[in-house]
Amino acid sequence: MRDSTLITASVEPAEKEGRHLAALGALVDERGLLADREECSHYATGARYGAGRALAVLRPTDAEQVAAILKYCARHKLPLVLQGANTGLVAASTPDASGRLLVLSLERLRKNIVVDAVNRSVAVDAGVTLQELNDALEPHGLFFPIDLGANPSIGGMVAANTGGARLIKYGDVRHNLLGLQAVLMDPPGELLDLRHALRKNNTGPDLKQLFVGSSGAYGVVTQAVLQVHRVPRQTATALVVPRDQAAVLPLLQALEQDFPEFLAAFEGISGAALDAVVRHIPAIGNPFAPEAVPEYCVLIELSSAAAPESLGLSLEQALSASLERLFGDVVENAVIGRGQDLWRIRHAISEAVRQEGKVIAFDISMPRSVLAPFRAEALDLVRSSYSWLKVMDFGHWADGGVHFNMVWPADAGQEYDAAMVSRVRDAIYDLVVHKYHGSFSAEHGVGPYNQPYYHRYTGTASQQLAGELQRLMDPLGLLGVTWFGEKPA
Amino acid sequence: MRDSTLITASVEPAEKEGRHLAALGALVDERGLLADREECSHYATGARYGAGRALAVLRPTDAEQVAAILKYCARHKLPLVLQGANTGLVAASTPDASGRLLVLSLERLRKNIVVDAVNRSVAVDAGVTLQELNDALEPHGLFFPIDLGANPSIGGMVAANTGGARLIKYGDVRHNLLGLQAVLMDPPGELLDLRHALRKNNTGPDLKQLFVGSSGAYGVVTQAVLQVHRVPRQTATALVVPRDQAAVLPLLQALEQDFPEFLAAFEGISGAALDAVVRHIPAIGNPFAPEAVPEYCVLIELSSAAAPESLGLSLEQALSASLERLFGDVVENAVIGRGQDLWRIRHAISEAVRQEGKVIAFDISMPRSVLAPFRAEALDLVRSSYSWLKVMDFGHWADGGVHFNMVWPADAGQEYDAAMVSRVRDAIYDLVVHKYHGSFSAEHGVGPYNQPYYHRYTGTASQQLAGELQRLMDPLGLLGVTWFGEKPA
Repeated sequence: MRDSTLITASVEPAEKEGRHLAALGALVDERGLLADREECSHYATGARYGAGRALAVLRPTDAEQVAAILKYCARHKLPLVLQGANTGLVAASTPDASGRLLVLSLERLRKNIVVDAVNRSVAVDAGVTLQELNDALEPHGLFFPIDLGANPSIGGMVAANTGGARLIKYGDVRHNLLGLQAVLMDPPGELLDLRHALRKNNTGPDLKQLFVGSSGAYGVVTQAVLQVHRVPRQTATALVVPRDQAAVLPLLQALEQDFPEFLAAFEGISGAALDAVVRHIPAIGNPFAPEAVPEYCVLIELSSAAAPESLGLSLEQALSASLERLFGDVVENAVIGRGQDLWRIRHAISEAVRQEGKVIAFDISMPRSVLAPFRAEALDLVRSSYSWLKVMDFGHWADGGVHFNMVWPADAGQEYDAAMVSRVRDAIYDLVVHKYHGSFSAEHGVGPYNQPYYHRYTGTASQQLAGELQRLMDPLGLLGVTWFGEKPA
Repeated sequence: MRDSTLITASVEPAEKEGRHLAALGALVDERGLLADREECSHYATGARYGAGRALAVLRPTDAEQVAAILKYCARHKLPLVLQGANTGLVAASTPDASGRLLVLSLERLRKNIVVDAVNRSVAVDAGVTLQELNDALEPHGLFFPIDLGANPSIGGMVAANTGGARLIKYGDVRHNLLGLQAVLMDPPGELLDLRHALRKNNTGPDLKQLFVGSSGAYGVVTQAVLQVHRVPRQTATALVVPRDQAAVLPLLQALEQDFPEFLAAFEGISGAALDAVVRHIPAIGNPFAPEAVPEYCVLIELSSAAAPESLGLSLEQALSASLERLFGDVVENAVIGRGQDLWRIRHAISEAVRQEGKVIAFDISMPRSVLAPFRAEALDLVRSSYSWLKVMDFGHWADGGVHFNMVWPADAGQEYDAAMVSRVRDAIYDLVVHKYHGSFSAEHGVGPYNQPYYHRYTGTASQQLAGELQRLMDPLGLLGVTWFGEKPA
């Protein structure tokens, strides 16, 4: 149980709650506090999974209002959960079922998008979404290259350290974060101003790193300064069928050898996943027709921000030539071009797989050198012990990230069994972490959904240090719903 | 004064010291403890500046010995300073003059260089040098791309977060650090094992970041797992004379537009610096002869790890064409090719400038968009108030790093005056930090030399948090010689 002054002997809870909400409402403008249960439920419901209940939703418009809210909450020990665009998948930005957590939504921190085109950087408020940021960058020929199947807020992207499908070329949020502003829980409401737009700055520990990928547990990010990149002027896309699983990594290596600076995506797609897309998404046909859907294929993208004429090079021709050279060796078949169509297939997988039954999703990663043996062993494991589950995996081979998703089919012959799912999840995670030195959460973060796995797979020394950091940053344990050490009493 | 048990009423200091050294010697092998004053002085002397005195030098061979040493030192409150290859420039790895600090040299942690070519990663012990690492990577066609004028150890590179001359293409150490192992001061000797070789891993706060760029104040890095890159198969180099200072950034932008993926270096060189090289380094002539040394020039490098034949593109031809197009606009003159010769000029600047007199070195950075106005204002400042100083600046314009070095000439007509140098340094730093939102230490770190500037230019909230982190990581204040908050009593 959280320590809270909401419930005391001397004051009726409802009355005290009302007083808190009135006081908090006075810190923001008239649209800054939502207490209506219906209005709140939107903020209490996860993007894809789960729902909780919020005491109220606070919607400040600037860092100073955030600071005032944190001060008040610290004084009265009111717990908060931070929320950006609420697109996360691990319940890190929604309240639990207690109805006692306030949601601190940053969605209205959206005054500033200040572009410095010469420095290739932008200072942007936490509530601005990725799409809005890219719209503002577009006239400068720039973009923020984290490619995701969602439209998160910039603050949420920092808190989750999102990576996406083009990490191999551009890096993740951490790689492109030059500075930030955060509001601390200790001292309550203190502004930490690290809004540098510097690529080189070694003047002490890099404090901004504390807030990257920490699910909002260490403080509230209110502004980020990002390095941005030039928009590609040409791309080349291909859907390639490797000879077999053993050929996938040699194919990746050959492409890194031929196009080390241009390779932007190398996305494995299992035949089962592609087949689901073809069957369930009416607008998308089998790109290999009249041939059958292959057992496995890889979506490849090269890109360059140089204009084709200034570079004197057509990436599509170069990619074709390279694949031709590999044909009969590691390459068995390929569809080249039609980039938008091919990416539509990739982005339709999640939806298509959901139509097959209940999805058991994975967001794992490992050194890419072991992806093929892992996949073989994991497929064996499922086939031998959970034969009614359909594996429909896909993943970012170039950066080692794998969505080894499976489906409990509607027609499985046995009812969906959460305990059984838990066992298969444990078995796969054990394989990933213990045998292949991988991660149980490549991109999605910890949050309440991954909390048990965090404790299971994180070393004692790491948990102790991460927990001490959390106590340092948030001594009362009021911030967020993710606990890296022991949950405060 | 440090808290220490070396001096007590009941035991003679020398006797107690001797007992400690005997006990510490028993934790390492016979070459693991140096107590001879002459032998120690090598470890107590900075690469370029300053010298202190060490109580003794400890040279463990693995993380377990490091752990045993930290345990002993914590128990007996013996202060330590960490040292890699001792190539730093801010005195962060050498003892002070007290003769009471132990040097913990990591130079013998050099058993492991484990290359995973498919994953493009390497696990490497902290004492291995950059050159040794690159020698081990070379057969795989790989290298660690941090380019420096020194040969530091990998542990030191992590502790300093080195950047170098090719940051714009490859990033700094932080960008390429996948994992590490560290030994903690609290609990004393605890091993923190974060040796992941993962590009995507968001399973809680990224604890390894604590050790990057923190000058060894938060723990002892004993192993690093690094992302490595393919060795360039072709480069194109040019020394370009921009029309004037206002043309430098447009030139950079034009090259980023033409070669966004290939631009590896964009190094500004002042005429004064080039002139010093030509006059003092006999092997190097004026590359623009018979024309005079220009007022300013820029060393440009493009590189690609793709073989010229597979890419169907000659970078040198492409660079020539691009510069030709810019000729008469932002480009006034250019020498193309002879990459080694041109880089020799760049690397000879430090030595040449030293021959002009006493160097007043700067390692500053700012958003690159303000480099030209900063330079103009800083030159004015020196000319108007310190007219006898010669500015001989050079810098990494592409990443905003500037060595705005100046020389107090031997024939200045007035004696070198440390107080005056301090004033000019303050004036330049004030300009950089307050007016141009830059950094007083781009690459060299804090350390005792920059400690006063750290306190002067770092926000109160940052200093407080960094100090609390230091107390968390090293409660007794025994580790290192850099203090991010208040120095422990």
